Amino acid sequence: MLSDAILGWDVGGANIKMARIDAESRRVTVVERAFPLWREFDRLPSVLASLEGGAWHRPVMAVTMTAELADCFATKREGVAFVVGAFEAAFPASTLWIYGVDGRFRSAEEARQQPIDVAAANWMATATLVARATSDALLIDVGSTTTDIIPIVRGRVAAEGRTDPARLRSGELVYTGCLRTPICAIVRSAPLGGVWCRVAAEHFAVAADVYRWLGPIGEDDYTCDTPDGRGRSRSDAGARLARMVCADRETLGDADVTAIADHVALAQARQIAHGIRQVMRRLGAAQPRLAIVAGSGVFLARAAAESAGLTTRDLSAELGVDAARAAPAAAVALLLLELMSTGRR
Amino acid sequence: MLSDAILGWDVGGANIKMARIDAESRRVTVVERAFPLWREFDRLPSVLASLEGGAWHRPVMAVTMTAELADCFATKREGVAFVVGAFEAAFPASTLWIYGVDGRFRSAEEARQQPIDVAAANWMATATLVARATSDALLIDVGSTTTDIIPIVRGRVAAEGRTDPARLRSGELVYTGCLRTPICAIVRSAPLGGVWCRVAAEHFAVAADVYRWLGPIGEDDYTCDTPDGRGRSRSDAGARLARMVCADRETLGDADVTAIADHVALAQARQIAHGIRQVMRRLGAAQPRLAIVAGSGVFLARAAAESAGLTTRDLSAELGVDAARAAPAAAVALLLLELMSTGRR
Repeated sequence: MLSDAILGWDVGGANIKMARIDAESRRVTVVERAFPLWREFDRLPSVLASLEGGAWHRPVMAVTMTAELADCFATKREGVAFVVGAFEAAFPASTLWIYGVDGRFRSAEEARQQPIDVAAANWMATATLVARATSDALLIDVGSTTTDIIPIVRGRVAAEGRTDPARLRSGELVYTGCLRTPICAIVRSAPLGGVWCRVAAEHFAVAADVYRWLGPIGEDDYTCDTPDGRGRSRSDAGARLARMVCADRETLGDADVTAIADHVALAQARQIAHGIRQVMRRLGAAQPRLAIVAGSGVFLARAAAESAGLTTRDLSAELGVDAARAAPAAAVALLLLELMSTGRR
Repeated sequence: MLSDAILGWDVGGANIKMARIDAESRRVTVVERAFPLWREFDRLPSVLASLEGGAWHRPVMAVTMTAELADCFATKREGVAFVVGAFEAAFPASTLWIYGVDGRFRSAEEARQQPIDVAAANWMATATLVARATSDALLIDVGSTTTDIIPIVRGRVAAEGRTDPARLRSGELVYTGCLRTPICAIVRSAPLGGVWCRVAAEHFAVAADVYRWLGPIGEDDYTCDTPDGRGRSRSDAGARLARMVCADRETLGDADVTAIADHVALAQARQIAHGIRQVMRRLGAAQPRLAIVAGSGVFLARAAAESAGLTTRDLSAELGVDAARAAPAAAVALLLLELMSTGRR
C-alpha cells in the first residue's frame, strides 16, 4: 500500500471535521475545527492543510461536504467546485474520492460535473456505516447546525429524500442544531413572569447559549462564534438569552433566564421529534423501535427520540466518542478503506 | 430664539433617522441612514455629526432611541449612557432633551440615571403626536425591524406596556419588520413543489428579499445589509430566497421563488395581525375601527390592519411621506417644539 493513512473529511459551512484511519492499526482519530467558511472561504486550502498536519505519506482522501450551501457561493455547482479545488490545491499528491448521495465515491472531475450527486451526502455515509451493524433503526445525528433522521430498514438505508430540499420535506433533515441555531428560529415566544413574551427576531442568542446555561455543554463545547462577540461563560450566555426578550441581566433574574432556556430546549426537542414522527409515519409497518443517536447534540437526539417513544443507543458505543461526534468524516474514511480492501469503489 | 432649528433623532440599532424642523417656516425634512451600530458603535458621534451637517446654529436636539438594546452593550444602562454620550460628543454646543416612555423630556443626566425611562420610547412619541389629531385609532408603525401597535382611545395613548419586554407581552411590540427580519424568524416551512418544506435556520435571506422579489420595495428601499453581501437586485433577492430551502436558482424557477415569498409575506402580515387582535381584545368596548398606518413597511401595516377588519389611513397624509417613514424622529422634534412654544417641557 502506497498510502499509510486514509483521511475522511466532512466539510461543512461552519465546521470542518477530519477522521484519520491508520492503514496498519485501523485506529480512528478525529480532528475538528470551527471554520466560518462563508466569511473566510479563501483560507480553506490552508485550513485543510493545517488540519491534515503533513505527517502522512500521500494519504488517500475521502470527502463529503455540505459547505456548497454556504452563501459565499451563488450555486451549489460553484460551491462543490470550490471545495474540490481547495482539496486539490492543499493536497496535490493525494488521491481524492468524493462521496455521493447514492453511496458511491466519485473522482474530483465527476463531482464537478454532477455537483448535485455529491452535495450534502454526509448523512448517507453515516447511515451506510450504521446499517452494517444495525439492521433496523432510526439514525438521529444532531450536529451544531442541522439534524439528520435516517431510517435503516433490514440493513439498508431507507431514506426518501436525496437532496437537501427533498430531505427538508421528508423530515429526514431538520435544520436545527445544538450550537449555531438562532433562538428566533426555534421559538416565537418564551415565558416571562408567567406570561408569554414574543422574542426578538435578531441574532442575539443561539442554541449554544441555551445548553451552556442549562448545563449539557461546557465552555469548550461552545465551538461556534458567540452572537455578540463576548465570552462563552454561563453568565455571558445568560445575558444573551435575556436580550432575546429585549431585557438585560439588570432586570432578569436567574430563574427568568432558566424559564426561557427550558422552553427553548423543549421546543427544539419537539421540532426534532416532529421530524422523527414524520419519518416514522412513512415507514408504516417497518417502523424501528431503536434510535442510534449521535453528534455533538447527542443529548438533544436522545431527548427527541425518547419523546417519540424510541429506545436509544449511542453511536459512540460502536464507533468511539470522537468518531461519533464527527460521524460522517469517520464514515467516509471507513467506507473508502473497505472499498480499497475489497478492490471495488 | 437662539436656535434656528429643532432636530429630532430616532437612534435605532440598525438605522438612524433625523427630522429637522425649521424654527421659522416649521417645515419638516428627514434624513435617514442605515448604520449597524452593534458593529461600528465607535463611529456613532461622527455619524450623528455628518447627518446633522453642521448647517445650523446651535440646534436644539430631541432624542429617542432603541439602540440601547444592541448587543454591543451589556445592559440598557450602558447603551443609554453610550448614546447620550455620543450626542454630547458630537454636539457640545447643543441642548439635549431625551424623550421618555411617560411622554416627558429629560436631561442627559436624568436619562443616564434612569435609563429604563428613556429606553425604547420612540413609539410613545409617534402615538402622542397621532393622538393630537385622531381621538380613536390603532397606530400601526412597521419599521425595518419591528412593529408598534399602539391604541389611542379618546385622544390619549392607551398603551398597556411601557418597557420592551412588557410591550412584547401585550402585543404592542411585534419584533418583525419589512427589511431586516430573518426569514427563519417568520416561518418554519414554505411551500415547495406543492409540499411543505422546512426552512434553513440561517441568516440566508431577510424580509427585504421577500418584498424586493414581490415588488413593494425597490432597490433604494433595501437599505439594510444583504445577508450574503451580494447585490439588492430582484435576481439577487431570489437567489437568497432559494437558499432558504437549501436550493439554488439552478434548481428553482421563478414560480417556486414566488410561492416561497408569497407564503412568507402572508405569514408576516398574520404575525402582525395577531398582535393587533391581542391589543384589540384588551380594549373591549373601546376598540377603534381605524388604523393609522406608518413606517417603511406601511404596505405590511395596511395588509395586517385590513386582515384584522380595520379601515386604514396613512400617517403620510397627515405628516408628509418623509416624516411618516421616520415618524418617531419627526414626532420628538414636533413635541419638543410645542413644549418650547408653550414654555413647558
